Amino acid sequence: MSQETQFIFNTFSFLIWGGLVMWMAAGFTMLESGSVRTKNASVICLKNIGLYSIAGMAFYLIGYNLMYVDVSGFIGSFKLLYGPSSAEIALLGGDEGALEAVVDNGYAVMSDWFFQMVFVATAASIVSGALAERINLWVFFIFTVLLTGVIYPVVGAWTWGEGWLYELGFHDFAGSTIVHGTGGWAALAGAIVVGARLGKFRKDGSVRATPPSSVPVVTLGVFILWFGWLGFNGGSVLALGSVADATNMSNVLVNTNLAAAAGVIAALIFSKPILGRFDLFAVLNGAIGGLVAITAAPDMVAHYWAILVGAVGAITCTGGIKLLEYFRVDDVVGAVPAHLFAGVWGTVAVAFTHTDTNVGIQLLGIVSIGTFVFTLSFVIWKVLDMLMGARVSRRVERLGQDAAELGIEAYPEFVLMPEPDDEE
Amino acid sequence: MSQETQFIFNTFSFLIWGGLVMWMAAGFTMLESGSVRTKNASVICLKNIGLYSIAGMAFYLIGYNLMYVDVSGFIGSFKLLYGPSSAEIALLGGDEGALEAVVDNGYAVMSDWFFQMVFVATAASIVSGALAERINLWVFFIFTVLLTGVIYPVVGAWTWGEGWLYELGFHDFAGSTIVHGTGGWAALAGAIVVGARLGKFRKDGSVRATPPSSVPVVTLGVFILWFGWLGFNGGSVLALGSVADATNMSNVLVNTNLAAAAGVIAALIFSKPILGRFDLFAVLNGAIGGLVAITAAPDMVAHYWAILVGAVGAITCTGGIKLLEYFRVDDVVGAVPAHLFAGVWGTVAVAFTHTDTNVGIQLLGIVSIGTFVFTLSFVIWKVLDMLMGARVSRRVERLGQDAAELGIEAYPEFVLMPEPDDEE
Amino acid sequence: MSQETQFIFNTFSFLIWGGLVMWMAAGFTMLESGSVRTKNASVICLKNIGLYSIAGMAFYLIGYNLMYVDVSGFIGSFKLLYGPSSAEIALLGGDEGALEAVVDNGYAVMSDWFFQMVFVATAASIVSGALAERINLWVFFIFTVLLTGVIYPVVGAWTWGEGWLYELGFHDFAGSTIVHGTGGWAALAGAIVVGARLGKFRKDGSVRATPPSSVPVVTLGVFILWFGWLGFNGGSVLALGSVADATNMSNVLVNTNLAAAAGVIAALIFSKPILGRFDLFAVLNGAIGGLVAITAAPDMVAHYWAILVGAVGAITCTGGIKLLEYFRVDDVVGAVPAHLFAGVWGTVAVAFTHTDTNVGIQLLGIVSIGTFVFTLSFVIWKVLDMLMGARVSRRVERLGQDAAELGIEAYPEFVLMPEPDDEE
Repeated sequence: MSQETQFIFNTFSFLIWGGLVMWMAAGFTMLESGSVRTKNASVICLKNIGLYSIAGMAFYLIGYNLMYVDVSGFIGSFKLLYGPSSAEIALLGGDEGALEAVVDNGYAVMSDWFFQMVFVATAASIVSGALAERINLWVFFIFTVLLTGVIYPVVGAWTWGEGWLYELGFHDFAGSTIVHGTGGWAALAGAIVVGARLGKFRKDGSVRATPPSSVPVVTLGVFILWFGWLGFNGGSVLALGSVADATNMSNVLVNTNLAAAAGVIAALIFSKPILGRFDLFAVLNGAIGGLVAITAAPDMVAHYWAILVGAVGAITCTGGIKLLEYFRVDDVVGAVPAHLFAGVWGTVAVAFTHTDTNVGIQLLGIVSIGTFVFTLSFVIWKVLDMLMGARVSRRVERLGQDAAELGIEAYPEFVLMPEPDDEE
Repeated sequence: MSQETQFIFNTFSFLIWGGLVMWMAAGFTMLESGSVRTKNASVICLKNIGLYSIAGMAFYLIGYNLMYVDVSGFIGSFKLLYGPSSAEIALLGGDEGALEAVVDNGYAVMSDWFFQMVFVATAASIVSGALAERINLWVFFIFTVLLTGVIYPVVGAWTWGEGWLYELGFHDFAGSTIVHGTGGWAALAGAIVVGARLGKFRKDGSVRATPPSSVPVVTLGVFILWFGWLGFNGGSVLALGSVADATNMSNVLVNTNLAAAAGVIAALIFSKPILGRFDLFAVLNGAIGGLVAITAAPDMVAHYWAILVGAVGAITCTGGIKLLEYFRVDDVVGAVPAHLFAGVWGTVAVAFTHTDTNVGIQLLGIVSIGTFVFTLSFVIWKVLDMLMGARVSRRVERLGQDAAELGIEAYPEFVLMPEPDDEE
Repeated sequence: MSQETQFIFNTFSFLIWGGLVMWMAAGFTMLESGSVRTKNASVICLKNIGLYSIAGMAFYLIGYNLMYVDVSGFIGSFKLLYGPSSAEIALLGGDEGALEAVVDNGYAVMSDWFFQMVFVATAASIVSGALAERINLWVFFIFTVLLTGVIYPVVGAWTWGEGWLYELGFHDFAGSTIVHGTGGWAALAGAIVVGARLGKFRKDGSVRATPPSSVPVVTLGVFILWFGWLGFNGGSVLALGSVADATNMSNVLVNTNLAAAAGVIAALIFSKPILGRFDLFAVLNGAIGGLVAITAAPDMVAHYWAILVGAVGAITCTGGIKLLEYFRVDDVVGAVPAHLFAGVWGTVAVAFTHTDTNVGIQLLGIVSIGTFVFTLSFVIWKVLDMLMGARVSRRVERLGQDAAELGIEAYPEFVLMPEPDDEE
């Protein structure tokens, strides 16, 4: 097979699978919009299309360079903008002499950029769900700029950018910790700073469930994420230019699907023992938990391991809901259990499924990334809170962000139930 | 073109198109969730994500081996689990000497598994829609295990597994009968055993329509299915490693789209004469009927045949709604007309569009698969009914499965119309 | 790389990206169904699945030949039907001698047909949104036959069919004007002929907003369009058989995404100054405006230009809403601002981002296509109005097209607000 053919396969793989990961932005939007109360279902749509746009722009302006260009251990370059190589520009300008230099790169420069960009958007999506129904819209957007322009790229530089954690042998195939953990830690810091929604926790410590605006919309979101995850993990093989790549990619897709399926089944069985109720949202989140857990290493050839990793991921996620409630942390869609807790499990599990990895290094990666992201996020949320007020007013929260901030409701023609008093 | 290049094309085709078929699971979910009454719209979501998970697991544990490994006429192997070939494992382990053996297979082993797995899930999806609003959740899941682990794999062994029907020359390109007929017969048996919903048929024999929870959600489901069907039929070329394959795949996609379009147009014209009313659901189901019908042989080069096959498929489907109502069989989403009746038509039509096939053999395939699936399904439904009660209680059915079985409603904040008395 | 390999890459690119463009039909359906009032949300679903079907059929029967076969300056052939080449038919029939002739075409004949067909459907989709809530269903379908069978193919013949505008050097990569402008002009003519909805404009000239049935459904539609647009522009490279093609396609996807992101951000910032209110729909339409604008030339290597083109596209779109309101043209979803106005901007901008183009020729293309499409569409709408009544009766409009024309509501179980009197 010629190098040209390999180049096209590699590039097309980035583009197609990257397209599927872009589509996950719709999945997060639907999952979150269906999970919040009707009065906040429009603002969450705006937040999600906004964060996807901001993430793409911040990563173009500074993020990619910080993450991948001239990484020296901890951080890449502070150059502005990113673009095709000069050889590519020459080739597209008609200079056939540049072909060899283009081909030597193995793939088109911007196809990789595209694939990396949709990943940073995923990390940002995780945050919006956890902080739904009370975070100020503009504060959220400012945090998104910092998360996608700086925080995530620095974590990426340590690992995929071949910085210090990469050098030590930290293994995280498609980002259980790098993407989902980063999003999860940032979300957790935010949830602590802004506090729980009014009435979420009663004075006696018990939890009051808030009604989701639409269960079918939540389910649609989960299916979109599952579908998109085929691209998330499949594309993370980062190549399709050899028989081994194609074979590896096939195993990755099978393991990804098996882990999600195992997650659903595990949650079907264990939601009642853990939560005391048979819980639809735990089952839906079980798919996400399974997917996040397998993401650290979906490339095993013995697929039954994927079932185990996914099932435990879902159970971790279900248990995590309980844990957060115990600490009175209000995470509207269970983003922290699904992305952070299941991601920790998945990153540790690599040490058992892949003999060339080291559990100590895996833990070091989890802890150092966690410390960095959580601390920095916490400080940023605190500063934003002091400067602008991270949380909307009680009036806005009661009225709903849709009417108060957008002047439009998600379902304006429908008659809604009166809301129970949240101060009971 | 090198064999390596062919290998990658074949493998990538399975993965990409298989991903689109996975996405059809979301299509069935939306179609069904929008079609049922609001009080059952959550349980149907749970059933669908559950069945997709169970199907994938059952097919991994036993189904694939039964269908494809060492098939001796009627049935394959009873081995547990399935995985990459030893040559693939060696190659991925770094042994370049295994490359030739890997390449000789023509595609990565698990890419084919993935593509076959999403097909078995489709068969199971058909059942959930027909039995919606009264089938017990756990009974449905147990039936799904048997359908996807045993019944469908046996039918598959007879045909795509190169068993006795294959030997006789039975032709069913992507599964009008093998997938959609199997799902349809299993659904029909279930609908007979569990009986019609309370109040569906009045004492005077007339039919009472039940309100769909959301027409836009139904429409979304149909579009997802149409989109996914490009993968269902396109991927069923089973190869992309030659110019002929790529050309054939192009014809398949065009015929698939033309048949669906013809189905919609035929239903637009004929729903009024057949049903006595201009019917939106008949039009939406017309797309499905056209798609199912063309699935048996979408590989013709004279595309106008696809229009005819699709149009008659849609008319068959529309007439089938009437037929089921006459026999007082309650199929909530019209799954039996769309998948079974249109599938029978499509499988017969092959004999007219493809001269190398025989109408007698086509009919033999339809009848033998139908007899096997219907009989076995009927027995299983009866046994499950005796053991566990296949149908929910009258109280649960009146209250809705969402509130009764899940403790959550699909749209809890919305004020709903009081339901008319179903005993009138 | 062998010519066979190139053939497969080119063909597969048409099929995969074309599949994504097909999916845009669902995006338009959701965007429109969520934007209209609840009482018209089903009819708009029917219109969209109908128009996609009709477009595919009309383009098969006559459109493609008019657009691409034997184009002599202004128009192609009046032949009926279109199909694979005789060499392809021979090859698929087993004649290996035909291989060379097949390969010489560069791609499978029907893969190109498929890709072109989904484009004509896009043009038709634009019309349905603008005329929602009052256009007669059957009049709309008849117009769709003429738009997709004749009007659009003639515009296509002038340009992509290598007619007179192509000869002059008119540049429109993926159809800012050819597809989106054509749809937009046809929509504008229709909106003028059928007039504004009852109560849209008050007697004092002020505008009354009508409530959207579902904001999350609108948002879903926008995400589907964004996702599909990767195929719309990416596939419009029209080849993937060389390193340059793959590199170009990568740049196209990045620019497409950046333009949409810039559109969202620009609308976030400028909706308040322009419209006097912070407007969610302006932000969502900003993504569409950015996408339409970049579509004329997404193949630049300096990606910051894409940001500028997209941002100005979104601002044009936002300002266009105001402009239409000033002229009391009622465009329910803002299709004319998003597709026509942003498309004009994008087509003009080509002259600045691509030095080998001429702003005079770009303007000539915009004006001549606009004149042709608007005039012809206006006459057709007028004739249809005289013959059949293009607009539904006041009774139907008040009651809603769902109940009046379909006998079914979109959300029949939900209690809705009483509608305000539209004659105030």
